[in-house]
Amino acid sequence: MVRNAGGRAFDAIRTLSVLQTIGAPGTIVVMHHTDCGMTHFHDADIKKALVEIAPNEKSSIEASRFGEIKNSIEESIREDVALLKASPLIKDDTQIIGLAYDTATGALTEVDDSKSAL
Amino acid sequence: MVRNAGGRAFDAIRTLSVLQTIGAPGTIVVMHHTDCGMTHFHDADIKKALVEIAPNEKSSIEASRFGEIKNSIEESIREDVALLKASPLIKDDTQIIGLAYDTATGALTEVDDSKSAL
Repeated sequence: MVRNAGGRAFDAIRTLSVLQTIGAPGTIVVMHHTDCGMTHFHDADIKKALVEIAPNEKSSIEASRFGEIKNSIEESIREDVALLKASPLIKDDTQIIGLAYDTATGALTEVDDSKSAL
Repeated sequence: MVRNAGGRAFDAIRTLSVLQTIGAPGTIVVMHHTDCGMTHFHDADIKKALVEIAPNEKSSIEASRFGEIKNSIEESIREDVALLKASPLIKDDTQIIGLAYDTATGALTEVDDSKSAL
């Protein structure tokens, strides 16, 4: 399992690519949850706060992504499923599915990535 | 909590830097465990297997780190504690401590980073 802020896949590719060289994962699940901090805190504010901590790093901070979820988690899940499907470091025959976890009800709902505009 | 292959800090800086802008974490704990896969599988083999999956990515794969733990986990913990202490994106007053988790006994042992050669 890979855990990070927002459950974002761009931070997880190193781990996922390693795992497929030392095992045989047939499926990767991207799961984001409702009320995630990254739906409430956005990159612009995070960058501003980080530039205060590290003013000398301003240009690299401004150029970085911090994983905000701008709209629905269904959209961020579709984005991350698409990222993994497009990654050359993930085997083409790996099944990649997206699940939305509702923390209020415990319900897991598969996100149909065929509806993605990506 | 951030989880990834090897418990390596270089993948965790995005999440850790975000968390300190949206909360007030006074302490970061780096924990690696005995018998970790990354102590058994080394970057050279991982790179070779990934180049077979993605031959067009050979140069970026060769230039990447995949998180191997070459020697003891005490050494990899010291390396990651030092990385976080040196990171400009982590506040200087954040306490960063390293713990080694022995999966056979359940024992947690603090790793004294003052003994580090880093």
